[in-house]
Amino acid sequence: MASFVQPSSSPHLASEEDEQKYANVNWEELGFGLIPTDYMYVAKCKQGESFSEGKLVPYGDISISPCSGILNYGQGLFEGLKAYRTEDERIMLFRPNQNGLRMQTGADKLCMTSPSEEQFVKAIKKTVLANKKWVPPPGKGTLYIRPLLIGSGAVLGIASAPEFTFLIYVSPVGIYQQTSSGLNLKVDHQHRRAHSGGTGCVKSCTNYSPVVKKMQEAKALGFSDVLFLDAATGRNIEEVSTCNIFIVKGNVVSTPLTSGTILPGITRKSITELARDLGYQVQERDISVDELLEAEEVFCTGTAVVVQAVETMTFHDKKVKYMMGEETLSTKLHSMLTSIQKGLVEDTKGWMVEIDL
Amino acid sequence: MASFVQPSSSPHLASEEDEQKYANVNWEELGFGLIPTDYMYVAKCKQGESFSEGKLVPYGDISISPCSGILNYGQGLFEGLKAYRTEDERIMLFRPNQNGLRMQTGADKLCMTSPSEEQFVKAIKKTVLANKKWVPPPGKGTLYIRPLLIGSGAVLGIASAPEFTFLIYVSPVGIYQQTSSGLNLKVDHQHRRAHSGGTGCVKSCTNYSPVVKKMQEAKALGFSDVLFLDAATGRNIEEVSTCNIFIVKGNVVSTPLTSGTILPGITRKSITELARDLGYQVQERDISVDELLEAEEVFCTGTAVVVQAVETMTFHDKKVKYMMGEETLSTKLHSMLTSIQKGLVEDTKGWMVEIDL
Ligand SMILES: Cc1ncc(COP(=O)(O)O)c(C=O)c1O
Ligand SMILES: Cc1ncc(COP(=O)(O)O)c(C=O)c1O
Repeated sequence: MASFVQPSSSPHLASEEDEQKYANVNWEELGFGLIPTDYMYVAKCKQGESFSEGKLVPYGDISISPCSGILNYGQGLFEGLKAYRTEDERIMLFRPNQNGLRMQTGADKLCMTSPSEEQFVKAIKKTVLANKKWVPPPGKGTLYIRPLLIGSGAVLGIASAPEFTFLIYVSPVGIYQQTSSGLNLKVDHQHRRAHSGGTGCVKSCTNYSPVVKKMQEAKALGFSDVLFLDAATGRNIEEVSTCNIFIVKGNVVSTPLTSGTILPGITRKSITELARDLGYQVQERDISVDELLEAEEVFCTGTAVVVQAVETMTFHDKKVKYMMGEETLSTKLHSMLTSIQKGLVEDTKGWMVEIDL
Repeated sequence: MASFVQPSSSPHLASEEDEQKYANVNWEELGFGLIPTDYMYVAKCKQGESFSEGKLVPYGDISISPCSGILNYGQGLFEGLKAYRTEDERIMLFRPNQNGLRMQTGADKLCMTSPSEEQFVKAIKKTVLANKKWVPPPGKGTLYIRPLLIGSGAVLGIASAPEFTFLIYVSPVGIYQQTSSGLNLKVDHQHRRAHSGGTGCVKSCTNYSPVVKKMQEAKALGFSDVLFLDAATGRNIEEVSTCNIFIVKGNVVSTPLTSGTILPGITRKSITELARDLGYQVQERDISVDELLEAEEVFCTGTAVVVQAVETMTFHDKKVKYMMGEETLSTKLHSMLTSIQKGLVEDTKGWMVEIDL
């Protein structure tokens, strides 16, 4: 069974050093790489029991059985959300309960026990609070939060692990330049990301390593990323390796149905609502490649990319260009969403959750 | 980046305690659970470099970055093979180079660097030798060997990890009772295990946690395991969660093609050869469920199950029974294969590799 390295001294949350407002980071040059912070959160739970409260420990390597479910059989889920620092110095989370619920769905699919929605949100808040000096200044970026739920107990034959670990680590990340340039996507007409009855609809670690090669190959050809088609027909679009996709034609905004093979993105769900607020008709339905190629505007959504315009789409030898710039719906939606997240406009949806400092 | 806990003292391979011939295990009651042994093997390699020789360290938890490729994105492969103790006290491996080659194919698919075939086999030998007192007495079981190749370096955005770890641990396991009773399989008509272009053809950890729930559900209904169908048509059989499948009718033995979605089992390959030696016509081809239900005899092959007869097959409401017992081909093949593995007959194929004690 996994046992984590104990901190040599208990977390000292109020020492002099920690009182400084910001960590020593060059905030102007944030990318999307790991910057280790002070603390991570760890909780454990035996199979058949429930999670009790975990604890903050110094960020660092964990100790785990070579025979654990995650190392041998890929029994693991992750989540991704962000903490935002507002102009008036509050620290806010965007719909963290949605990530907690998604982790529960995933845990059920992978036969794991998950923390409750309440435990999940509380743990996120605690972790962000302990690392608050790592939340970038307003406008410079966000604190990316990465919760993991893994089968940490030892299991030799294929089965669910006897122990699960819920872990949260964080890293400051930069903002994506949304307006300057768009994504250049390649439709992958050969490989599928997910299949019916599989794990495509949950944030299982098993969905990601299999697409790294396809991403690498596309990047080597100058593309930003890959757009996958459905495994059942090979005719309909599904999603990009780490974000959902929308197409716009006239007054209609369409996005693929979350019918089991694509991730129900929290940004996707929020953008759907904002587009309706703007008077667009939003359809969740099957979208063929033909329709994709005839769209006026295409954009992607996700916690990392927020809302990002697609500039070009390539399918076999055909390459189409989409509308870009200030007048596009994606620019409007990006601005609406980030204004809410940064606390620049009133949050009438009840999406933002403030962390008591 | 991952750093492994260093042993407090260097491995002492020749101390008095180690000189005892057998470890303190109740050899009569071996199952398929983990029995920790003395040593494991660990080697590391940075992305873009090659593996150099690893080392034996005491078996125990490893230390790994919470941000590693394996914990977040399922970047990991495993292998499974066995060491056999012969009546004349030699210790033998069965075709270990095949496992090494399969790990290379998998590493390529998941953008990892793999040890060479030679390094792989050498490391296996070293690990078994260091744990030789854990190899069960002849007839009591085998030493199961579990090599892992994992993305151990830290990576935040989805990409290949900057460091890989090759690790081998072992555990004594019992023999499967092949003749007493057969498998009762359920054809899963809803869920697929793999899809074209996916990782079904390699021993990626990502193929296993997604099927645990289906196995659990089948077991709750009294079945031994699940037989999956192909994702493309849903009409042809592929494989069971951890073994390959064969059907027999008259003089023809058939097994599904390894065309990208099923694991090319080493037992499958060996059994194919032995069946040909027995004068059977062996076909690797698409096999429909209809044909499966009309077969005379059905059996599964794999390192863990060796060759095991299927007693019943259930598809929707239809349940068929197959030939069982001493006269079946599977009984013959099981005996031929295990006689080679145990050193009871001459190994004319060059399959067995002896470990110099
Ligand atoms: C495959 C995939 N699709 C879509 C998304 C977008 O989801 P969300 O908006 O919840 O971040 C993600 C994760 O960010 C993802 O990994
Ligand atoms: C999915 C799957 N199929 C088949 C097999 C059989 O392969 P082998 O005969 O090499 O053990 C295994 C592993 O044992 C497996 O995991």
